Amino acid sequence: MNVDGIAYRTIWVNQDGWSIDVIDQTRMPHLFEVSNLRTLQDCCVAIRDMVVRGAPLIGTTAAYGFYLAMRDDASDEGIASAYRKLYKTRPTAVNLRWALDQMRGCLTALPIAERAGRAFERAGEIADEDVEISKGIGRNGLELIENLAAKKKPGEVINILTHCNAGWLATVDWGTATAPVYMAHDAGIPVHVWVDETRPRNQGASLTAWELGKHGVSHSLIVDNVGGHLMQHGMVDLCLVGTDRTTRTGDVCNKIGTYLKALAAFDNNVPFYVCLPS
Amino acid sequence: MNVDGIAYRTIWVNQDGWSIDVIDQTRMPHLFEVSNLRTLQDCCVAIRDMVVRGAPLIGTTAAYGFYLAMRDDASDEGIASAYRKLYKTRPTAVNLRWALDQMRGCLTALPIAERAGRAFERAGEIADEDVEISKGIGRNGLELIENLAAKKKPGEVINILTHCNAGWLATVDWGTATAPVYMAHDAGIPVHVWVDETRPRNQGASLTAWELGKHGVSHSLIVDNVGGHLMQHGMVDLCLVGTDRTTRTGDVCNKIGTYLKALAAFDNNVPFYVCLPS
Repeated sequence: MNVDGIAYRTIWVNQDGWSIDVIDQTRMPHLFEVSNLRTLQDCCVAIRDMVVRGAPLIGTTAAYGFYLAMRDDASDEGIASAYRKLYKTRPTAVNLRWALDQMRGCLTALPIAERAGRAFERAGEIADEDVEISKGIGRNGLELIENLAAKKKPGEVINILTHCNAGWLATVDWGTATAPVYMAHDAGIPVHVWVDETRPRNQGASLTAWELGKHGVSHSLIVDNVGGHLMQHGMVDLCLVGTDRTTRTGDVCNKIGTYLKALAAFDNNVPFYVCLPS
Repeated sequence: MNVDGIAYRTIWVNQDGWSIDVIDQTRMPHLFEVSNLRTLQDCCVAIRDMVVRGAPLIGTTAAYGFYLAMRDDASDEGIASAYRKLYKTRPTAVNLRWALDQMRGCLTALPIAERAGRAFERAGEIADEDVEISKGIGRNGLELIENLAAKKKPGEVINILTHCNAGWLATVDWGTATAPVYMAHDAGIPVHVWVDETRPRNQGASLTAWELGKHGVSHSLIVDNVGGHLMQHGMVDLCLVGTDRTTRTGDVCNKIGTYLKALAAFDNNVPFYVCLPS
């Protein structure tokens, strides 16, 4: 998505062709800084200290960490050590473990000399796959927004409420809950996003409001208490949130407070969607 | 209620026997300071600048402001002027208008020489009446808590969730939503209060948590998002909140976010009560 008119991903290969750049999310929303990762250790610190955050981005960063480790030591022991060190940074992150399994799986069978090259390639694929996943969510969500727009007068704004940050900053690009919003905006559908502050850590205020603002999407930052009132007064057309965990039966765990908004949506017949990869 | 072991009201006659002291609520929770009001103008400023806040306390402060005005000018013009100046400080406050009508009503019929004395007396009555109102709410609510306690094992804690400040700081003593809590605590029933932070102005964090702590009532400050989760997990036995406005049909308006907690209480079969004068 755009930051002041320039297209960014949250993670990319530096112009040197080998080291990895990420947006330093510890400084946001006050500073926009890029952090350069050159070693396995750099990647471990970036994940541990929340320089990067959001499950998809953490997974991708871990994949690139694996690749940087292979540059230094592509032996079987190097693979085992990279896996161990990266896994330890956030043992509860499902995407991280998935990415590490992917990397180990595709590298172990290869001759040592080919491992670093393949790791670079595979990490890039993981990044691109994540972008495609978000785009897929976006296309599905865009349909919902288009249907809502079809029921309104031409040019009338579609109001969307979101909670926490499930935006492009949590992924490689597009985001999960925000992908439909960005696609609708880019398609010229007038959207406005109610951004929940998301206490106690304020991810809505610090991240979602920042990224929507930088891309030029109309939005209002609101305290978490306000969503129900807005729904009671017909000021929300659609709720879109992300998910931290999804059960086989379709129940989701998401940032504290999502439940309260879901209850209010139900009470006011506002459609409420959780955006996640299939 | 107690502040570090000493019993306070929010407003009282200074030991000089004529001027009025109030707790300065603009400094809380960081500083506990008493502000001395000696003129009508002092009372107007105290109301306007939220040195005092909460409908019952504003009404009582206005009554004392009327009395202080009578000390300077007890003529009919003095009555009209005091009414006008005090009313202007918060024209939307129902209790303020009520208190001013009370004062004007009882003073107008009296000889000028008797007005200041009677105003002092009537203001004191209004303060005492407010304490009695809170006590009445407390006795009703105490019954609810006793019934809940009777269903639990002896000594098991009753968990009560509240939103915003409807405590003794908003009244003259006891509070509305907190009166049952203080009575249960003083009666030796183990209670614990989940105190909603109450964004955006944090009245829960700044006032409710402060007053419960000073009186020695067990409590935890939580972000507003948490209440639903606690109810889902059986960690709330009772919700008690205040009200800013109550309609004839029993609907209430209260601080933003109350609706979300009411929905969660309904969804989890947690009793939810609004505490107000009858």
